Amino acid sequence: MAASGGPLSGVTVVDLSRILAGPYCTMMMAELGARVIKVETPNSGDDARHYGPFINGKSAYFQSVNRGKESIALNLKDEGDKAILDKLLEKADVIVENFRPGTMEKLGFGWERLHEKFPKLIYVSASGFGHSGPDMYRPAYDMVVQGMGGIMSITGHEGAPPTRIGTSIGDIGSGLYAAIGAMSALVHRGATGEATKVDISMFDCQLALLENAIMRYFVSGTAPGPLGARHPSITPFEAFHTEDGYIIIAAGNDGLFHKMADALGRPGWKTDDRYLTNDLRSQHQEYLKVEIEAVLGTNTTAHWGKIMDDAGVPNGPINNVGQAAEHPQAAARNMIVDVDDPVTGAMKVVGNPIKLTAFEDPNSRVPAPNLDQDRERILKELGL
Amino acid sequence: MAASGGPLSGVTVVDLSRILAGPYCTMMMAELGARVIKVETPNSGDDARHYGPFINGKSAYFQSVNRGKESIALNLKDEGDKAILDKLLEKADVIVENFRPGTMEKLGFGWERLHEKFPKLIYVSASGFGHSGPDMYRPAYDMVVQGMGGIMSITGHEGAPPTRIGTSIGDIGSGLYAAIGAMSALVHRGATGEATKVDISMFDCQLALLENAIMRYFVSGTAPGPLGARHPSITPFEAFHTEDGYIIIAAGNDGLFHKMADALGRPGWKTDDRYLTNDLRSQHQEYLKVEIEAVLGTNTTAHWGKIMDDAGVPNGPINNVGQAAEHPQAAARNMIVDVDDPVTGAMKVVGNPIKLTAFEDPNSRVPAPNLDQDRERILKELGL
Repeated sequence: MAASGGPLSGVTVVDLSRILAGPYCTMMMAELGARVIKVETPNSGDDARHYGPFINGKSAYFQSVNRGKESIALNLKDEGDKAILDKLLEKADVIVENFRPGTMEKLGFGWERLHEKFPKLIYVSASGFGHSGPDMYRPAYDMVVQGMGGIMSITGHEGAPPTRIGTSIGDIGSGLYAAIGAMSALVHRGATGEATKVDISMFDCQLALLENAIMRYFVSGTAPGPLGARHPSITPFEAFHTEDGYIIIAAGNDGLFHKMADALGRPGWKTDDRYLTNDLRSQHQEYLKVEIEAVLGTNTTAHWGKIMDDAGVPNGPINNVGQAAEHPQAAARNMIVDVDDPVTGAMKVVGNPIKLTAFEDPNSRVPAPNLDQDRERILKELGL
Repeated sequence: MAASGGPLSGVTVVDLSRILAGPYCTMMMAELGARVIKVETPNSGDDARHYGPFINGKSAYFQSVNRGKESIALNLKDEGDKAILDKLLEKADVIVENFRPGTMEKLGFGWERLHEKFPKLIYVSASGFGHSGPDMYRPAYDMVVQGMGGIMSITGHEGAPPTRIGTSIGDIGSGLYAAIGAMSALVHRGATGEATKVDISMFDCQLALLENAIMRYFVSGTAPGPLGARHPSITPFEAFHTEDGYIIIAAGNDGLFHKMADALGRPGWKTDDRYLTNDLRSQHQEYLKVEIEAVLGTNTTAHWGKIMDDAGVPNGPINNVGQAAEHPQAAARNMIVDVDDPVTGAMKVVGNPIKLTAFEDPNSRVPAPNLDQDRERILKELGL
């Protein structure tokens, strides 16, 4: 039977992080059952509390990534408050921060001191460029690393203005790698008792996400350009014009290509010398696209979707965010969950994509905390 | 002192996955010290072995995500080979697969049977739409979920053709959540002895990556559109035209906005009623952009980059993949590593963005295996 809580039940995270990269990491940990205690600056708190949209003065941006966490405001330049943080860390398993390198050392909470004082404490840092290298002190936000890290250069259309990835992949990407780092460190600590520091650079994470494009750059010696709406090395694998819009068809191997050719009434493609292998199809991608669109242009996206479905060829429409979020599959998978916040009223946010047989997947979440709302209870727990 | 291996040393992963989502998950696990044994179909192996570019006939695509793994070819419709897989699973910690739902059950390796037979074995599945819901049997590749999951609808420019994210975020995103799921399950097993199934849907993961956009959709009731090269709710936070190209400036809070205004010689913006808060700046984003570009258009990206650096305002150029991969910070962080493959010769691939104090971060990797290359050694280990 599925249990409440999650695989990280019993793990306590002290979270000094702000805005998105660190908070996304700790949100994932909270979703998996960890207790996350946000330590925020007094008065203003996490910067994200001031990012719109707002509902009754409370940031919905903040709500989305901080549901299920606790909050205590501490002035880390005040000796009394520093002592409270020490007490918190004494009982914690993981500390997460996304300050600029050197800030934690200045505050007296650098890895060296913490590791000596709390040898079981795992330290996770997510910074713009990491804790080493010539650019380590360079400040960064999502868009800076999206630009510097190369992903914008391969996203969009040849000759068109630059295109940002519509989601904050600079922050969320590093939040995901930070979560992997934190959990791998928990596994290691479980096996050996040793804690480690996890040093995540948003810039590094952009490179890691590029994976295939970096390989292609080093193989060819040429930086790949933007490819519009197609895959760089699999064909056909792109958005095609239909009579009333677009359909994505992804025929990723010979078998699927043959099914597609038959379903479109063009069995001759299967034996066409230009289309015999994926490599040949990729070399003749533009020509094949014209041939495919000549067929698809005669009917609607829905029509061709049904035909591709029946043929077993991976395909789909281009949904907007509303169509995606309201998709029956999203509902069936509990991917949209409720937050019943006393300030904002009922809100919907995205759920947890990690579905575990051993645990329940609840359809509601505890609201994001107001600044400092858990102070009294936390201090009492610490015996203060 | 940093040790060799990694936090997952001692963890054995049996990897039935193909192409990218599953292999990316197991690549991360291999990078973190796990032993990953690829189980491939005889003769053709993983589909990705046939994706270009090729060097001396070996796929560089395959190399990039399968370095450091082992390979054994097993025909999972053959009783003898099934018995070998059972033997492998007996000693494994994690099994990863990205077949369509139902395939593993048909082969006799579904979660129910495996959990009964190997109660400590963690089962990680990454499929297009997950193991439940009306669309569970729908086939998917990266582009299908990029389209259906909504990210393409917010990436690009108003009125322009659809834009694919330049990297395979449908696959890599789900690979990252799968890795988080696998490691959280290892933490849970370490604490309780219980193994769980991790059910990852590529479509769910796209929704999870949208996070902020989904929240905005439910707050406003309107699906957000593509925003070109700017952030939806932080201003100024976008790519601006300079005399010779673009610069990204991300002034994510009032203090940074004030620094930027001073550095651009426009201190009046700090007290301008339209620009007093991030929310007001976001309401007047188009107007502010014109004002900023009027200044930036008078000089080069490099010139303004230096001025923003000196002022401490997060900024950067838009690098192509080569500029990103050859960046001094990438070298300093060991983000480009060597694979010395006897077939392809020396190749460069992207390194591991998870830097751990407790472990070495080697600058080379073991090549991706040839199909079935580790058969004899693996069979010997199993006593077969």
